[in-house]
Amino acid sequence: MLNEGELVLLWSPHKGDTYLLRLKRGAFQGTHMGTIPHDAVAEASYGGVVQTHKGQPFYVLRPTSGEFMRRLRRQTQIIYPKDAGLLLLYLDIFPGARVLECGTGSGSLTTLLAHFVGDGGRVYSYDRREDFSRLAQDNCERWGVAHRVTFRIGEVVDGFEERDVDALILDLPSPWEALDAAYAALAPGRRLAALVPTTNQLEQLLDGLSERNFVDIQVMETFLRTYKTNARRIRPEDMMIGHTGYLLVATSVRSRGVPEADATEREPL
Amino acid sequence: MLNEGELVLLWSPHKGDTYLLRLKRGAFQGTHMGTIPHDAVAEASYGGVVQTHKGQPFYVLRPTSGEFMRRLRRQTQIIYPKDAGLLLLYLDIFPGARVLECGTGSGSLTTLLAHFVGDGGRVYSYDRREDFSRLAQDNCERWGVAHRVTFRIGEVVDGFEERDVDALILDLPSPWEALDAAYAALAPGRRLAALVPTTNQLEQLLDGLSERNFVDIQVMETFLRTYKTNARRIRPEDMMIGHTGYLLVATSVRSRGVPEADATEREPL
Amino acid sequence: MLNEGELVLLWSPHKGDTYLLRLKRGAFQGTHMGTIPHDAVAEASYGGVVQTHKGQPFYVLRPTSGEFMRRLRRQTQIIYPKDAGLLLLYLDIFPGARVLECGTGSGSLTTLLAHFVGDGGRVYSYDRREDFSRLAQDNCERWGVAHRVTFRIGEVVDGFEERDVDALILDLPSPWEALDAAYAALAPGRRLAALVPTTNQLEQLLDGLSERNFVDIQVMETFLRTYKTNARRIRPEDMMIGHTGYLLVATSVRSRGVPEADATEREPL
Amino acid sequence: MLNEGELVLLWSPHKGDTYLLRLKRGAFQGTHMGTIPHDAVAEASYGGVVQTHKGQPFYVLRPTSGEFMRRLRRQTQIIYPKDAGLLLLYLDIFPGARVLECGTGSGSLTTLLAHFVGDGGRVYSYDRREDFSRLAQDNCERWGVAHRVTFRIGEVVDGFEERDVDALILDLPSPWEALDAAYAALAPGRRLAALVPTTNQLEQLLDGLSERNFVDIQVMETFLRTYKTNARRIRPEDMMIGHTGYLLVATSVRSRGVPEADATEREPL
Repeated sequence: MLNEGELVLLWSPHKGDTYLLRLKRGAFQGTHMGTIPHDAVAEASYGGVVQTHKGQPFYVLRPTSGEFMRRLRRQTQIIYPKDAGLLLLYLDIFPGARVLECGTGSGSLTTLLAHFVGDGGRVYSYDRREDFSRLAQDNCERWGVAHRVTFRIGEVVDGFEERDVDALILDLPSPWEALDAAYAALAPGRRLAALVPTTNQLEQLLDGLSERNFVDIQVMETFLRTYKTNARRIRPEDMMIGHTGYLLVATSVRSRGVPEADATEREPL
Repeated sequence: MLNEGELVLLWSPHKGDTYLLRLKRGAFQGTHMGTIPHDAVAEASYGGVVQTHKGQPFYVLRPTSGEFMRRLRRQTQIIYPKDAGLLLLYLDIFPGARVLECGTGSGSLTTLLAHFVGDGGRVYSYDRREDFSRLAQDNCERWGVAHRVTFRIGEVVDGFEERDVDALILDLPSPWEALDAAYAALAPGRRLAALVPTTNQLEQLLDGLSERNFVDIQVMETFLRTYKTNARRIRPEDMMIGHTGYLLVATSVRSRGVPEADATEREPL
Repeated sequence: MLNEGELVLLWSPHKGDTYLLRLKRGAFQGTHMGTIPHDAVAEASYGGVVQTHKGQPFYVLRPTSGEFMRRLRRQTQIIYPKDAGLLLLYLDIFPGARVLECGTGSGSLTTLLAHFVGDGGRVYSYDRREDFSRLAQDNCERWGVAHRVTFRIGEVVDGFEERDVDALILDLPSPWEALDAAYAALAPGRRLAALVPTTNQLEQLLDGLSERNFVDIQVMETFLRTYKTNARRIRPEDMMIGHTGYLLVATSVRSRGVPEADATEREPL
Repeated sequence: MLNEGELVLLWSPHKGDTYLLRLKRGAFQGTHMGTIPHDAVAEASYGGVVQTHKGQPFYVLRPTSGEFMRRLRRQTQIIYPKDAGLLLLYLDIFPGARVLECGTGSGSLTTLLAHFVGDGGRVYSYDRREDFSRLAQDNCERWGVAHRVTFRIGEVVDGFEERDVDALILDLPSPWEALDAAYAALAPGRRLAALVPTTNQLEQLLDGLSERNFVDIQVMETFLRTYKTNARRIRPEDMMIGHTGYLLVATSVRSRGVPEADATEREPL
């Protein structure tokens, strides 16, 4: 028996259609194959099956963070699991980490970061637009992690309030304009990431980094290719996503160039 | 000032060479460009810079989980960050999760899972070979997460001791032989993943799943393409990894087919 | 001034819409942006521009073989330029070559082969279905190369009439059933290619080849990624084709195994 | 029995090692597995097998244009079959075509173009360096197509001597500097292609095209993924080529913008 408020994924064996819902006593979920009472879902519990009023079966599954990301209510481009998963490792996100994100957008990455830092960690998420911030907050609440996030509204030029964060992500059109603010907020020896869709942005970003105290710069892109699952006809799907964006990771250091006897102290901004 | 026992990544601006070391008072790290005293590294602290006895600079960085995975001491094929990152999202790993892995191998995925489940979570890792298990334990200790892992030696045919785990990963040559044991251990509505290098294995695995209570089967592969970082000459690297393996994810359900009035209870094994 | 019967590609600067037409005095080409008289196209000639009756401009371009392949009238899966182009090189197609193809399908590869073997070469194209063969013939006529093709209707089990062809392509669901016929038709030391969409077919094909006199077996797949062309926003298109098929190339030899004193003569079928 | 002067590919079943040789009565081919007399190769003929003096077998195969390209004697970057094959279709190369190439480099594309235009076609190949031109000529002679090529030494700023060529390829570091010369040489409605390794070059090239009479601009890149050929273990090779270059194709028109009553005549340079 599932509790009120639980987030549930309904999966249909017919074409794999899915619905994501938060359980509410007495409510009904509409599908294109008929209506399903939430109470029946709660009773079936995870791994169980329910039927629409037309007799169509749906399985009751636990949603994953990856699925949630892809199904987010959105007003902006979102980050895809293929990119987000890699960032977790390259930025060294960990339970307990303090992570800064700018901008919030629809909150797909915000949700994921809050998911992985756990209750002992914290995500600080900046955006200049209040409507995006509110949407992201809704999405984080839906996934049950909003209490781990501090949403802030502000312009990059004003800098970030936090210091010594464990990781920092720039997901905005002109990340090079945020490099000084990012450097001031990031703990030395820690990673900064940025996502940009075009090589022109990548060029400006690389130029910006080359003039500042960042080393070990890595640029990459990822591809995800899905396959059909008929064991007698194994083959990739006809279409795939051809581009989401270029990922850049760099590491903050106290200074660059050969060290001198006295001047290795970190100069904020 | 860094503490004894801290894990540190030394990064050279000359070609990006790196060394991973655990700080030990009075010890020395050899590099192909000269020797570095651990005490100097501790004093430089993260983001600082040290020099070899030949005057070559190395930056003191925080290692990431992704780098650690790639640099693991290994006796087996390891899982790559591009695949592991995606698995975290598709399996819904979270801080506090109980995750079962079979087989342990060199422990690259073990380390990563233990990293992300945090101190409130637990990883149960099975392998039939004690030498692999010991190597994996060493690697987990090096990353500081061995206390979150239960290492078990055993054959798949004997099944797993755990029940209702939140996620389960099969990383062995014949994952189809472990499906009954996996089903018994996995909580209903939760995800099973498997990694196989060949399409022949994929075929056998898909056949095995089709006869059991698993739904929402997804098969995929990932690619990671890295770029050179000269802003005036932006281009991908000449070579890339062309294949690591096929990733399969499936979800356990209590039964398949149209539900009947009475028989929706989960039958272990 | 272009001649009656010339094949022309009309290209619109508005979204790059294109129309392929064969010039016919007095005829009109409908577009979703208005009607264009063929006579105006003939007068504008290649590189010129015409306008629809609504004043929308279209450029008069020479169609390429690649575009023609993609725009073919079709009743079957067609082969894509990315695969066909590679096959030309791996099969060593050349002006004057005699090439055998089985099956014809909609004739996309037939057209291309006939294009590249020139008037001195010949394509023999087999299909069991007369309607496909007729469609392919229409397509070849449209491209102006039908006179270089011999279309044949027949079953693979009956073998091919030709001997000592310079290259041979199997584009049918069970290419392994055609291997004996292919071997008999192909000149020794020359290449056989096959295209299959699934790895299961690839497995059967590799098994079939391993029992026959073929060496230097190569299996590959190709990807084509297209980019947006805005110089200020260089980036790949969002979507790409994820799969067309696996390409296999093998070379026919007189016998396999260490040669013996007498038995190196080629045994047809 | 093969003739003196024939080009032959020797292929070893041991790891697929290959040697390319031109038959010469009385000559010997050294391999790392022993020596092979050319006369034995001539006698074995295509599809036959010869042995080294150590008893190692080699099959006598017909080399393909694709293999020849990859095995060219080179002093420069060469174009790969995966890119060259696509260009044949996108540029609409055909037997009898007149094609202009700048620069010649080691002649890999020169050879291929000369291969496909046949005896009725012609390739005009420009390079500023005489040593490259000589090397390319050697390679074309080796493949037996040098009589179809006019090699020219010169600077791009001096323009090209030819007019109304059917296709034109720029394979030089600054293709944007050759656009006026290319436009003057190319027949209207026909295709220009360029290959550049970096996105910075791509940006400059797109800028150059936007100011001139070119339409239908397409930018793409190709990937080739090879597979192991063991039917019981079907899987891609571990490594693949991650980048060769960006391919751009554009079409020359008489003028751009809405046509005016009088000014549609093509202005050379």
